[in-house]
Amino acid sequence: MADKQDVIFVGNKPPMSYVLAIITAFSSGSSKDITLKARGQAITTAVDVAEITRSRFLKDLKVSKIAIGTAEMPPREGENKSRMVSTIEITLSKE
Amino acid sequence: MADKQDVIFVGNKPPMSYVLAIITAFSSGSSKDITLKARGQAITTAVDVAEITRSRFLKDLKVSKIAIGTAEMPPREGENKSRMVSTIEITLSKE
Repeated sequence: MADKQDVIFVGNKPPMSYVLAIITAFSSGSSKDITLKARGQAITTAVDVAEITRSRFLKDLKVSKIAIGTAEMPPREGENKSRMVSTIEITLSKE
Repeated sequence: MADKQDVIFVGNKPPMSYVLAIITAFSSGSSKDITLKARGQAITTAVDVAEITRSRFLKDLKVSKIAIGTAEMPPREGENKSRMVSTIEITLSKE
C-alpha cells in the first residue's frame, strides 16, 4: 500500500493526451491515486479527462475527491492587478 | 429545517448574474442548499460562480458536495451521432 500520489496538471492539450498519461501512470503500477489539477478554462478539460478515463478505459476507477478553490495569478503584462482564477482538483483512485 | 433544494442552471451568462441568483435565493430564506448544475464549457463558469459567491459575498457558505458526470446530448443539425458532454453539480449549503 504505497502512499504515493501522482499529480497531473491539465492545460490546453487535447483531453486524450491527459487520458493517456493517467492510463500510463496507473499501469506502471506505482500509483493508487492520481490527482488532476486545472485552473481557468482547463477546468472543463479536467472534468472531460476524468469522465473519458472512467467511462471508456479504466472502468474500475472511482472519483474519490473533488475540490474547488481560487488561486491568485500574477498580473498580465501592462496591468498591475493580480487576477483570481478558479481551480479544481479531481482525485481518481483504483479500487 | 425545510428540505427544499433549489437548482440553478449555469449557462453562458456572466458569472455575476448567477451569483446574484444564489444570493437572492438564500436571502429569501426558503433555501438551505442550492445546487449549481452546468455542462460543457459552463463547468468553468459554475466553479467561478461558487468561488465568487463564497469568497466575496456569503462567507458562511460551504461547498457540501461536488459531483461530475456525463450527459448525452442530441446530435447537432446535419450530424447523426449524439455527443457526450461532461457535467458538474456543486451544492452550496448554509451553515
